[in-house]
Amino acid sequence: MKAEIMAVGTEILLGEIVDTNSAYIASRLPALGIDVYFKHTVGDNLGRITEVMARAVENNDLVITTGGLGPTEDDLTREAICAVFDEVPQVDPDLEQWLRGVFARRPNNPMPERNLKQAWLIPSARAIPNPRGTAPGWWAEKNGKIIIAMPGPPGEMTRMWEEEVAPELRRLAGGSIIVSRTIKTVGIGEGSVDEMISELTKSTNPSIGVYARADGIHVRIGAKAPTQELAATMIEPIEHRALEILGDAVWGFDEDSFESVVADLLDEKDVQLAVMESCTGGMLANTLTNVPNVSSHFRGGIISYATDVKEIMGVDPAIIGEHSVISPEVAMAMAVACREQLRADIGIGITGVAGPDPQDGHPVGEVHIALAGSSRIANETLSINYLSSRENIKRRAVTQSLMLLRRALLAAK
Amino acid sequence: MKAEIMAVGTEILLGEIVDTNSAYIASRLPALGIDVYFKHTVGDNLGRITEVMARAVENNDLVITTGGLGPTEDDLTREAICAVFDEVPQVDPDLEQWLRGVFARRPNNPMPERNLKQAWLIPSARAIPNPRGTAPGWWAEKNGKIIIAMPGPPGEMTRMWEEEVAPELRRLAGGSIIVSRTIKTVGIGEGSVDEMISELTKSTNPSIGVYARADGIHVRIGAKAPTQELAATMIEPIEHRALEILGDAVWGFDEDSFESVVADLLDEKDVQLAVMESCTGGMLANTLTNVPNVSSHFRGGIISYATDVKEIMGVDPAIIGEHSVISPEVAMAMAVACREQLRADIGIGITGVAGPDPQDGHPVGEVHIALAGSSRIANETLSINYLSSRENIKRRAVTQSLMLLRRALLAAK
Repeated sequence: MKAEIMAVGTEILLGEIVDTNSAYIASRLPALGIDVYFKHTVGDNLGRITEVMARAVENNDLVITTGGLGPTEDDLTREAICAVFDEVPQVDPDLEQWLRGVFARRPNNPMPERNLKQAWLIPSARAIPNPRGTAPGWWAEKNGKIIIAMPGPPGEMTRMWEEEVAPELRRLAGGSIIVSRTIKTVGIGEGSVDEMISELTKSTNPSIGVYARADGIHVRIGAKAPTQELAATMIEPIEHRALEILGDAVWGFDEDSFESVVADLLDEKDVQLAVMESCTGGMLANTLTNVPNVSSHFRGGIISYATDVKEIMGVDPAIIGEHSVISPEVAMAMAVACREQLRADIGIGITGVAGPDPQDGHPVGEVHIALAGSSRIANETLSINYLSSRENIKRRAVTQSLMLLRRALLAAK
Repeated sequence: MKAEIMAVGTEILLGEIVDTNSAYIASRLPALGIDVYFKHTVGDNLGRITEVMARAVENNDLVITTGGLGPTEDDLTREAICAVFDEVPQVDPDLEQWLRGVFARRPNNPMPERNLKQAWLIPSARAIPNPRGTAPGWWAEKNGKIIIAMPGPPGEMTRMWEEEVAPELRRLAGGSIIVSRTIKTVGIGEGSVDEMISELTKSTNPSIGVYARADGIHVRIGAKAPTQELAATMIEPIEHRALEILGDAVWGFDEDSFESVVADLLDEKDVQLAVMESCTGGMLANTLTNVPNVSSHFRGGIISYATDVKEIMGVDPAIIGEHSVISPEVAMAMAVACREQLRADIGIGITGVAGPDPQDGHPVGEVHIALAGSSRIANETLSINYLSSRENIKRRAVTQSLMLLRRALLAAK
């Protein structure tokens, strides 16, 4: 089964918002055995939506759209499906009753008459329920071609996908599936990784790809087979050989992130962590607490944004006075202070200049990271100068802190 | 001038990473007077890249690609341009020298021979410098058609765009430009906003669009005109009328975010803020500190992830014992504690269950937010039950905290 994905909306086309829906859907198609070769983005223009949709319907079994199902005159996905399937929409009485019920339950929010088009259907389409909003999806099917239209808000779309669309597609597709395995490395360049594993990259099934990412170079092995088990059997020897070749450079697999690897290591080594952040403003704690299982080994953190908050929280003013607040010494004093204050085994301290302006003669991008260790984990300090924007400096300092933590925890006695 | 945007890469096509480059480029084209009607994503397949590129070149003056300029056999954008322009690539001696120099400056990282294709050129193309990586861009021009190929890593692409590509395109385009103004509202539904401003939405230039967003409903006014000044003059009366109609529902404009509006209000009302976060794990502090000018009015924060860290930081254990740690009373005790500990004027406390598991009999999604005020700002508590995933619960609790802060600061004496 072959599919194309369309994101509809001028705000997406013009980049005012980033389209996460298309990636979400595309990432879920291979496991259903559905191939996808193209994704498109089109603005709120009936002619252009219809043009792309008609070409996609011609070349594929399945077209999946997101967006353009709102109540306004700019919401034109339903109209495009009508044009492509050459059918006329009518208000469906059951949908209308449901829609009026949704609005009746909202206080002081009578249903504007223009919302009525959200109750439209055509003979070839049935509605896909949407308990999270006022736009039902459409499952339209004619002459062996399927168009699935889902709403744009990601919360509504993902629920509709998981509960309604994916189960139905799984029944329909039932051919080969694609299973992939990603090996994540750090410390080697893309070209070098590619050269190291060149004995493997000639294979077409499984196929091997090498990709540069913010967290290092990824090697992706993808196998196409009739069953999950067979695909896994095809991947196993190639993964085994790749791991032999890449050795210590490998830090994780598939969904692993630096933070999930660190959370696992904190658990495995039974170490309690605390952090004290200045320039990263809570991003390290926020990143760590995105990992559900970190709870039992993350004590908490202090965001010492104002300089005197560092002192309130136990950093000796003399160290700040002697070395300046942007220094490896203060980073270490912060790491020690949060370890003591929050009764953790180890502490991380981060101080630096995220910008946009230099601070006390220190340039934007100067960052100092310190780890205050324990009897099992050595102290460590790291100083970096990032040439980047405020948010990137924060993000890269957080990544660097997580890498430092990972190394230290791996080496823990 | 008319352009199409192509993102190249199987990992983007299959949704393993979200393409932010296309949105970045698209958002910058209107101000250059360049229209964009379609964006496409294609995998690492020469036939399919060439197919989409050839069609885009036929229908447009300009095609902009990102990705596919790496050194591996999967990087095929250069090959596709060669096919579309029917030319043969050769290693350019100057580029080769530059590339070998880049590798020579990296310790222990000899240049793999396959990187040499990053030094390719064709007669119709010149290289676009890339000081941040090993992939130069291509500016290819033939028979009045332009193809601009940029590398995929966003840090490399954005620098190349800003420093090299945009200035050149500005010289070339020079026609009408599009200026837009976005009014951001909260508390009214999309259909209702659309109906309220229906007297305005018939206009085609300026055009008016209504969009549902995570932070409320946006009204976007877009004007096409020969100059910035003229476009602004066209927008002004429509914006004025829309503001009259929408009244108190308007909370911001254009690039405003809840956090930037709160940062401005903290400054305007001269209020010092501290936060104490449990289930949001630092996300509120991290969000606030993404706004550069918050520094002078954000004291800092405490992430009291472990329950006893709340007590260390000044929350009375008796309150936790009586009401449980997930309660409005503890949220208020946290707000008071951080206000006192970090010597701020007001404090925000957040406690709740981000999941994935319920905690002490409290369901996932139960969140309590409290504001400990001052002589000028009233205390407030808010309890919500979010039906969502861990990261969404964190994000929505943060948004809700910022909305609460905004209201309280607006009402400050």
